[in-house]
Order: sequence, then structure tokens, then C-alpha cells
Amino acid sequence: MAKSIANKEEDYSQWYNDIVQKAGLADHSAVRGCMVIKPLGYAIWEHMRDQLDQMFKETGHKNAYFPLFIPKSFLSREAAHVEGFAKECAVVTHHRLKNSEDGTEVVVDPDAKLEEELIVRPTSETIIWNTYRDWIQSYRDLPLLINQWANVVRWEMRTRPFLRTAEFLWQEGHTAHANREEAVREAELIHDVYARFAEDYMAMPVIKGIKSENERFAGAEETYTIEALMQDGKALQAGTSHFLGQNFAKAFDVKYMTSENVEEYVWATSWGVSTRLIGGLIMTHSDECGLVLPPKLAPTKVVIVPIPTVKPEIDEVAQKIIRELTEKGISVEYDCDTTKRCGFKFAEHELKGTPIRLGLGPRDIKNNQVEVARRDTKEKQLVSLDGIGQVVEDLLDEIQDNLLQRARKYQQNNTTAVDSFEEFKSVIAERGGFVSAHWDGTVETEKAIKEATKATLRCIPLNQEAEEGACVFSGRPSKGRVLFAKAY
Amino acid sequence: MAKSIANKEEDYSQWYNDIVQKAGLADHSAVRGCMVIKPLGYAIWEHMRDQLDQMFKETGHKNAYFPLFIPKSFLSREAAHVEGFAKECAVVTHHRLKNSEDGTEVVVDPDAKLEEELIVRPTSETIIWNTYRDWIQSYRDLPLLINQWANVVRWEMRTRPFLRTAEFLWQEGHTAHANREEAVREAELIHDVYARFAEDYMAMPVIKGIKSENERFAGAEETYTIEALMQDGKALQAGTSHFLGQNFAKAFDVKYMTSENVEEYVWATSWGVSTRLIGGLIMTHSDECGLVLPPKLAPTKVVIVPIPTVKPEIDEVAQKIIRELTEKGISVEYDCDTTKRCGFKFAEHELKGTPIRLGLGPRDIKNNQVEVARRDTKEKQLVSLDGIGQVVEDLLDEIQDNLLQRARKYQQNNTTAVDSFEEFKSVIAERGGFVSAHWDGTVETEKAIKEATKATLRCIPLNQEAEEGACVFSGRPSKGRVLFAKAY
Repeated sequence: MAKSIANKEEDYSQWYNDIVQKAGLADHSAVRGCMVIKPLGYAIWEHMRDQLDQMFKETGHKNAYFPLFIPKSFLSREAAHVEGFAKECAVVTHHRLKNSEDGTEVVVDPDAKLEEELIVRPTSETIIWNTYRDWIQSYRDLPLLINQWANVVRWEMRTRPFLRTAEFLWQEGHTAHANREEAVREAELIHDVYARFAEDYMAMPVIKGIKSENERFAGAEETYTIEALMQDGKALQAGTSHFLGQNFAKAFDVKYMTSENVEEYVWATSWGVSTRLIGGLIMTHSDECGLVLPPKLAPTKVVIVPIPTVKPEIDEVAQKIIRELTEKGISVEYDCDTTKRCGFKFAEHELKGTPIRLGLGPRDIKNNQVEVARRDTKEKQLVSLDGIGQVVEDLLDEIQDNLLQRARKYQQNNTTAVDSFEEFKSVIAERGGFVSAHWDGTVETEKAIKEATKATLRCIPLNQEAEEGACVFSGRPSKGRVLFAKAY
Repeated sequence: MAKSIANKEEDYSQWYNDIVQKAGLADHSAVRGCMVIKPLGYAIWEHMRDQLDQMFKETGHKNAYFPLFIPKSFLSREAAHVEGFAKECAVVTHHRLKNSEDGTEVVVDPDAKLEEELIVRPTSETIIWNTYRDWIQSYRDLPLLINQWANVVRWEMRTRPFLRTAEFLWQEGHTAHANREEAVREAELIHDVYARFAEDYMAMPVIKGIKSENERFAGAEETYTIEALMQDGKALQAGTSHFLGQNFAKAFDVKYMTSENVEEYVWATSWGVSTRLIGGLIMTHSDECGLVLPPKLAPTKVVIVPIPTVKPEIDEVAQKIIRELTEKGISVEYDCDTTKRCGFKFAEHELKGTPIRLGLGPRDIKNNQVEVARRDTKEKQLVSLDGIGQVVEDLLDEIQDNLLQRARKYQQNNTTAVDSFEEFKSVIAERGGFVSAHWDGTVETEKAIKEATKATLRCIPLNQEAEEGACVFSGRPSKGRVLFAKAY
């Protein structure tokens, strides 16, 4: 192999870090907890962003951009919100540096202290609702359906590339509505969009559910979540959509005049997904040879490798294939680097997760064929060069579908219904995965379970059959099973 | 008119602010010097970004993302750079807030002081070159052609929406090369891309030139610039591309092994354009009725207004036109708001700069025609509904072309060659525009001219005929004319 990566079963965490580093997705930076997103990682993010952006626009949302900084006092306005977000954050206190007296460095200029400190946004509800006060006067101004693509900063203590970083990239939607029902519908609509994106594009199956009160977003009345299961049996919260009630409207005094000329507070939602999704993508599909990318999000869908190296007759056929694939809108790269051997290239493109590799040697050309290797199963087959475009197009669909089915099977096989706390503990400790159990609906029980097992309540699944039972922990009545898991 | 805007001749500055606000491009924010980019403004930026991004990718560049924060000590590494950028910037000194003792607010936690302050990036040369040290070992790693789309912060004292804001959005390219010639070629290539983008997409004619030593980017050996002329006779620096020599490679110790096994410092370029371009776009084309958008960057190219209001037979024809335009890839909006009169809508779409308005009433439908109004000249004509798609498509091209020609004529009419300092002063004071004059090549003269007239040396134009002469200020020998102007 080109670059050795750790064994997934032996050291999952190192395996993940190896893929991130060696496939060229991200790199550490000189700033604590901040990563550098390298070209391959950023290209995947661009594909995610463009697809989500299209889905948001198709559902009537428009993009805007709000300031990076939030005046400190804004954070105190919404009580629950400040508890959740005003703690670990980057605080700007000064606006100037000056040369030190000995001239060897620059130092903070004490004369340039800000009157009010600015917080680098950890999320933008406060600055946005402060702006909406000017934008909303009447029911005619509603609904207001805005999304923002931005960077945010949360001063996390333990960071891991993509999964948890001090700075990350995300989108945050912030909508305003005339009534409760419409705002709830909006939160649910985006919940659907996120689930559809995860499954149809990332090939990452998710459980749609709502968060318990304890796990809700700071300032929300309801949090909708999509939860995915990683290959080490830990859950990943992949996207959340919040019904915020009138909390932010009240905190920032945002009212509108109804068609009956009555002044009412506005109803709100907010929702976001982030570069964390790239972590989920890596951990859903990748294997012992490196990254595996679902074709719909792969920046390069097909790579052509000349065997053993470039030659005029190979180049000629390669160019023909490139034309055929490009016409079909399939991104393709011809790896004509003469300084690397083809075996090295094979390993390199496997590491980088390219869905299909076409191997093309003189004998193949003589036989009018090409070796087609798929990344997901590593199967290879010889295929006629006639109509290769169609074969590749179909195979990309098949790979996309196979990845989803494989991940779905994994999720199903690693979801265990338990009816006693003993069983609960042993499954969490030994197998991991989602544990489906009855719960009495109280925060105390939820906290006690977390204390005892480190598993958290991931969600109360929607779309499941009603089933009454007894809480595995307290024995008290339960209205339905909920999902627990250790989580990222 | 829907919303009155100031007269351009009487109060240019208010006219500009009115367009920004009333066309819905941007809004003030609660944070000093930071603006909110509203949906129309952001949609224009998206169009600019997507086009530039395509041009960068076509010339071999890849996107990546580097941290928002820069350790303070990095700024001291490159001497000229720190002079230019380490002064007015946002300084993060703490990473935590806590509740105040009386519980009424949050305050900075003194225990959470950072060991080393972090600067919110004003530009990213330092953090990027610190990263390149790990990415570049051998000539095989070169060239490294990276671009980043990001927000940056410069603590400006006087701000104006888009033209000069504390936070702005931009792209910054940072490339590394094996030798001087290749790096210079890269800086020139991007200079060409910027000029092409300005003229072919923004319909904004620019002068391509190089900056005098005094106006160079802090840390550059050569700065290439495109300079545009606004309607008040002031110049706007619209994009710069810098040849950085080995300055950053030396500051951050970035060396590579040549193919002859010799260690050498790497050569660098950097280049950027920002949301400032939106300010340039507004000031190049807009008029007394509001924004005028070149079709290639208009989020909505065509609006259909039913006259006097919606009616089934109008809707039907409108839908047919929409299908025809959509098939051609022309974005179109049907303004079927029944709460506004059509006269109001006309003014509203003029204010927002939509290139073409189609007015459709019952009599038009009877006559199988539609009223086509172009935003640039405000001419109207009745056009047959048969083949309206082609007419609109051709007219969009014509508008795009007309805007460029009109702006070019303005630029030519407002560029004055002068041969005495008296003439120089009177042109700058009375007419404004570009003044083309001989200059002796010294910083002292440049500064003296600025002192006397407020005009700065915008650039030493490339592609002009050689002409020897005498400096208008000092009388000393000059090798060619350069351009001066008051500038934004």
C-alpha cells in the first residue's frame, strides 16, 4: 500500500485519523483545535454544499450573510441560549496591535480596548434576530426564509478533525413565521431535507427523531435530529432542525402586525449541518484501504490509470473515454504521472476513495477492453470499450445504492432492542450500536443512564409503531422505545 | 417611484447608500463596520463567486480552507507584512465567558486568557505559508495552486457598505512555485483572469497596470492591479495579484529540493478580490432609478409583470414564456403579488436592477405581443410572443454589451492626459477621473502629489505605448505616463 493506515478493528481512532491525514482531507494547524481543510476534503464539502444549497433554494430559501461578531450583551438576552453557547467561545477584546518597545514583536495595544467585547459567532440566532426586528413589520414580510453559509467557532476542549473542531464550516437556516403551525412545518420540512440528503447523497442511513428535553438545542422548544451509526458502534448527530417557538422574538422584540391589525410575536426555526458531515461520511463507508466515497459526492468519480505507464496508444483511448464520460457529466481524471508506478497509483486512488478505477494497458486496447475496478467491493471486471460510458454510469448508480444498502444493513444489525437494564449495559459495553429501550420520559432517568453507561439518549424516533412498556431503568410506564448510544 | 433615492449629481454618496439599502443589497448591523449582506446582494456575490471559481479551476487551482485565526507571533515574521496588516485588527484574548456575580449578564472570564493572542485573519499569507512548510518538500510538490473563499477582518475606521467594511468576503489565492519566472507568470495569469472577469461579466472596464512601490501590497515585490473608474470620477482598485518573491518562504522557512538535489526557497504569489466588487458594480452602472445589473451577474434576468394584475389568461401566457426562457437557462420571475399595483412593481424592479421587464396585459395577449422594457436604456418595445425567448436572449447579450461600451466610453471621456502640474491640479479638482501624467518614478514625488491633490498613483499601465517625457511635478525625466486619481 502507498501509505499504511491503522487497522480499524485494533485502533479505530487512529484508523480515522490516518484516513483524514493520508487521503489528504485535512491537516492540523498551528491554531489549537482548528484544522486546515485540504483540497480533497474541501471539494467534498463543495459537493455537499452545492447539493444542500439547491435543496434549500427549491424549498423557497434565500442565502444572506450576517456578521462574524456578536456583541457580548446579545448572548444574555435569551436565557437558555446563553447557558448553552456563551461559555466556551472566542472573545475579541481589542482592535489594534502595536510594536513592542524593543521592536522585536507586536503586542496588544491597551489603548484599543473595545467598549463591549465581541464574540466570534458560535451560532447566529442572536445577531440575526436582532436584524429581523428591522426586517419584519407585517404579516406580508412573513415567512422570512433565510440561510447562511458561514464559519463558526466553539472553543471545544477535545477536538477531532471534522467531528469536533474549534472552527467549523456550516450552514445555518433562520426562518420567521406568522404562527406556530407554520414554524413547526418548516422545522419538519428541513428535517426531511437533511434525512433525504444523508441517505440519497451521502448514502448514510439515518434515524429521524426528536431530542429529549435534556438534549435539545439551547433555546429551542423542539429539536428534530438525524442520527447515524458509525462503524465503531457510536452514534453521530448529523443534523438538527429546531422549532424555537417565540423565544428569540421575545428576546429581541420582533413583532408583526397580523392581517387583523393585531401585534404578535414572530415564530422561529433554526437548523444546521456542518463539516462534521464529512466525518460521518468517512466513518460510514471507509475501509482498511482508506476512504470510500459515494459517487454522488465524489469530486472525481472515475480515474483512468495507464498500465504500466503512459503510451501514445493508451493516451488516445483514454482521451476517448474521457470525452465519453465528460459528455455524460461524469468527472474523470487521467493519472498520467510518469514518476509513479501503476501499483502505487492503484493504492493511492483507493486511499482517496475514487469510486471507479479504469486500468488500461496495451493488451486491453488490443482486446478492445478495459479493466473496471469498483472501490466499494474492490471487484474487478473486464469490460468492452464499446459503450464503456454507459457501463460506468450504471456502475456509479450501483455503487451509490450498494453503499446505502450496506450501511443500512450495518445499522439494522447494530440496533438492539433490550428490555432490562442489565441487557442495556452489556449491549452498550460489548456490542455498541443503537440500543432501543423503553424510557420513562424523565431527565433524571436519562442522566442516570448516561452516568451508568456513558450512553446518551440519541432520539425519540418518529415513524415507529406505538408500543407501551416499562422503562428499563426505573420500571415506570413508557409510551414507546427510544434510542440510546454512545455518541461522538 | 417606489422608494425615492438621492440625486446622483447632488449627493453621490447618499445616492450610493440609497441604492444599497433600498434595492435590498445590504443593511447596517449592530457590529461597528460590519454589514449584513441581504439576499439580493448575496445572490450577486454567489454569481460572481461561481464564475470566478470556475475560472480559477480552469486554470488549475484548487480550493482549500485555512483557520480564521492567526497566532499573533506569525504576523511579526515578515517585516513589511506586519507593518501593513498587524495594526488595525480584531484580537482574540480570551476563550470563555461566565455569568457575572449578580447574574444579570455574562462577563469575560479572566481565568480563560489565551497564552498567545489570536488575530482574526486580515489576510492569510502567514498561516498558509506556515502550513506550506509541511506540504512542500520537493520540486514534485510544486507548483501548489490553492485558493480560499473566506471572510476576513480589518478594523477600518471609516466604512462604507461593500467598498470598505470591517468584515468582508473574498477569495485569496496563495501559490507556491519552483522559480521566479513561473511565479511571475502566475501573478500575471490571475491579473488577466481578474481583468477578463471585470470586463466580460461585470461589464466594468478596467485599466491593467502595476502598482508603484509605495502602493504595493505589504510583503510583495510586484503588485498587479485592475483599476476601474466610478461615476463620480473616483478610481476603485478592483483586484490585485502579487508576486511575493521568496519573502514568505524565507519568513516561514519553506524550502524545496530541486531535481538536482539542491535546497532552494520557494517562490510565491497571492491574489484576491472581494465583496468590494459589488460596490464597483453598483457604481459603474446604476442610475437615478436604482441598481442596473449586467445580465451575466443578475440573479433574476427577466421579470414578467401582469398588467394591471394577475388573470388566468395572463398567467397562462406568462407560464409559457417562463418555460421558454427556463429552457434557455434564463432565470425569470413572475411577479404575481396582488397586493401591489403594476406601476409600483415597475419601479421596484427598476430599483433592483432586473435587466429585462416583460409587461403583459389582456390587450397584449389579444395582439399576441408583449412589452419588453430594458433596464439599461429604459427603452420599451412591443414584441411578438412568437419567438420571444430568442428576442430576450439576444437582448440580454445586447444589454451586457451596451453596459460595457457605455462604461468604457465614460472611462475614456474621463481620462485626461496632462503635461503640467497646474493642469493636473485643476483636472483633479474640477473634473476628476484618471489623470495620465509623466512621473519621475520616485516615492517622494508620489507623496508630494498626493499631499497637494489627494490623488494617488493608481497604476503604471501595462499595454501602453512607450513615451518619454518630463515629470509633471519635478520636471525630471520620466519613462512613461502613469495614472493618478482620487480613489476609494
